[in-house]
Amino acid sequence: MDNERIKDLGEKELIIRLSKYMPKNQTKDDCASLSIAHENLLINTDLMVEDTHFNDKIIHPKDLGWKSVTTNYSDLISSGCVEFIGINIGLIINPETKWYWIKEFYEGACEALKYYGGVILGGDCSKGRKTAISVTAIGLQGELSLRRYSSRPEEIIITTGYHGLSKLGYLLKKSKINEDISKLTRELISQSLNSFQRPKPKRDFLQNIIKSRLSTDHVEIGCTDSSDGLYQAISDLAATSNCKAIIDYRKLPKYKNWPNGNNWDEYYFYGGEDYELIFSLPKDWAKRYLNLDKTSYEIGKFIKGLPSVEIINSPLAIQGNSYSHF
Amino acid sequence: MDNERIKDLGEKELIIRLSKYMPKNQTKDDCASLSIAHENLLINTDLMVEDTHFNDKIIHPKDLGWKSVTTNYSDLISSGCVEFIGINIGLIINPETKWYWIKEFYEGACEALKYYGGVILGGDCSKGRKTAISVTAIGLQGELSLRRYSSRPEEIIITTGYHGLSKLGYLLKKSKINEDISKLTRELISQSLNSFQRPKPKRDFLQNIIKSRLSTDHVEIGCTDSSDGLYQAISDLAATSNCKAIIDYRKLPKYKNWPNGNNWDEYYFYGGEDYELIFSLPKDWAKRYLNLDKTSYEIGKFIKGLPSVEIINSPLAIQGNSYSHF
Repeated sequence: MDNERIKDLGEKELIIRLSKYMPKNQTKDDCASLSIAHENLLINTDLMVEDTHFNDKIIHPKDLGWKSVTTNYSDLISSGCVEFIGINIGLIINPETKWYWIKEFYEGACEALKYYGGVILGGDCSKGRKTAISVTAIGLQGELSLRRYSSRPEEIIITTGYHGLSKLGYLLKKSKINEDISKLTRELISQSLNSFQRPKPKRDFLQNIIKSRLSTDHVEIGCTDSSDGLYQAISDLAATSNCKAIIDYRKLPKYKNWPNGNNWDEYYFYGGEDYELIFSLPKDWAKRYLNLDKTSYEIGKFIKGLPSVEIINSPLAIQGNSYSHF
Repeated sequence: MDNERIKDLGEKELIIRLSKYMPKNQTKDDCASLSIAHENLLINTDLMVEDTHFNDKIIHPKDLGWKSVTTNYSDLISSGCVEFIGINIGLIINPETKWYWIKEFYEGACEALKYYGGVILGGDCSKGRKTAISVTAIGLQGELSLRRYSSRPEEIIITTGYHGLSKLGYLLKKSKINEDISKLTRELISQSLNSFQRPKPKRDFLQNIIKSRLSTDHVEIGCTDSSDGLYQAISDLAATSNCKAIIDYRKLPKYKNWPNGNNWDEYYFYGGEDYELIFSLPKDWAKRYLNLDKTSYEIGKFIKGLPSVEIINSPLAIQGNSYSHF
C-alpha cells in the first residue's frame, strides 16, 4: 500500500489519509478554527524546497517531517513562545511520489508535535514538479517578549549551544566535504548528522531565563535563532538593536574534537541551520542564567557603536559573509 | 531596476524591498506577533504552483497576487469571517525571475488586502525551479459559524452567483477550448477572463444573512465556497451534513448568453475556481435573504437521504465528476 503513487491514489483518498494525522475534533472544513482568549499570537512561515533545502539522498522523509516542524518552532521559541498551538502544512508533491514518502513525512512531523506540542490544524496539497513544504506555525507568547531589536549595550551575548555541526552533517551526507574527514571522531560525525537531520531547538531555555531574572519589570530580551548561521544571528541582533557586538573567539564553545582551520571556522560561523538561540542579558542576569543552564555559553558582549560584529582573539581572518538562500 | 534578476539582486536587497509591502509598525523579526482579545480565529493555507495553477502566459503577476489573497480569503468568508487580520506569504521563486514579477505580484496582493482588509504579517522566501506561492490567511470569526457540516434537510440551497466563468476564462487564455467561441459575446468573454484572473469573493453576503435572520439563536449555517466547482461544493455540504441535495437544473443562474450544451454544463458544474458561496438556509429565512440579495439564487434544497447530489430537470447527463488537483 505504501508503494502506491499519489497519482494512482487519487486526491480524495490522499485527503482521507492525511486527515488521520489531524486531531479527531478537527473537522475537515474550508479552514481551521481556533478559540483564543486574549493572547499574543506568534506566527511563522518557513519553506523547504527540494534540491534547495533537501533531497531524498541526504534526508529521510521522516527526518524532514521532524525538521519542517522544529525549524519553524525555532523561530517561535526565539520570540518567546511558551505554548505551541499547531501548524498548517502546504505540501507540493510530484504525482509520482509514493504514499510511503508522505506517510513518513507526516509521522516525523507528528513526532515533533508530540515532543513540542501543537497539532496539525489544516493545510493544502497540490501537485508540482519538485516537492516543497510550507509550514505556518502558530504559538502563544509568554510573559517575556524576545525580539531581535531588544539587545542593549553592555549586555552579555549568550549561545545555547554549538555551531557548525549541521553544516558538517549536510556536507557529509552530500559527500561534498573537501576536508580530511578521516580524523573526525565517530561521535562528532554522528552528532553532526543528527544536527542536520533532527534539529532540536531548546524550548526550555526560557524557563531558566525567567528563573534567573531579578526584576519582573524586565520583559524584553534581544534574541534570535541561528538558523542562518551564528554570524548572521549576531549581525541581525546588532543591526536591529543598533549596537556593536564584540565576540571573543576563544569563548566560542566547540563540539568535542571539532577541528581547527579556516574551513572549519567557516562552517562554524556561516554554516547555518544550527537552530541555537543567540540572545543577550544584562551582566548580573547573564551570570545567574549561566549558572543555571550549563549547556549555554557566554560568547561576547554588546557595546555602544555602529551596528557591526567584531571578532576578537581570532587566529584566522573571518569575513563578514552571510548565509544565502539564493 | 525592475528588470534585475533575483539572483543578481541578492537576498538582503530582496528582503528590504519586500518589507516595504508590510505595515510600518511590523518589524522584521523571527516571526509575526499579533494581539488577540478572546476571539475565534480562522486560519487557511492555499497553494498556487506554476504550471499547475498558473503560468506567465495565462495570468499577469499582478492578477496572480490579487488571486492569491482573494481565493484564500474565500475560504475564510465561507467560514463566517468578518474581519481579515492578514497573511503570511511563502514565496518560492526561480532565481532568474525579474524583480518586476515579484513587485507586480505583491502590488496585486496589496490591492486585494486594501479591498478586503488585512496586512502582510510575514513570510518566507526561497529559491526553486518553479515559482510557487503558499499563502496562510488569518481572520476573525463573526457571530455566525459557517461550516460544511451544518446544512439540514428541508433547507434551501443558495448560490451567490454564476458558475463556469472562471473555467471558460482559463480555457480562453490557454487557447485550449474545443467549442466554437465565435458566437460568444464580448461581454461573456470579458467577464470570464475577469473571473479567472480577478476572482472577487462576496464578502458582504454575511450581512444580508444576518439582516434577514429571524432568531439570533440560529448561529450555524451550512456553507462552503465553490473553489473546486459547483458540484463539489454541493457534494461536500451533502456529505459532511449527511443529507441529500436536490438541484433543479432550471433554477441554475447562468451568465447572460452562456451557451447550452454538454461541455458548457461540464464547465458549469466541474470547472472550479468559481469562488461563489454555496449555502443553505431554512425556507423562511432563505426567502427573506433572497429578497435582500438580488445577486443570489435559490438552486435546490436538501432532503433527508443518503449523502448525494441529484440534479433534476437536466437536459443532459451530468456525471458525478469532481475537480482534481492531480
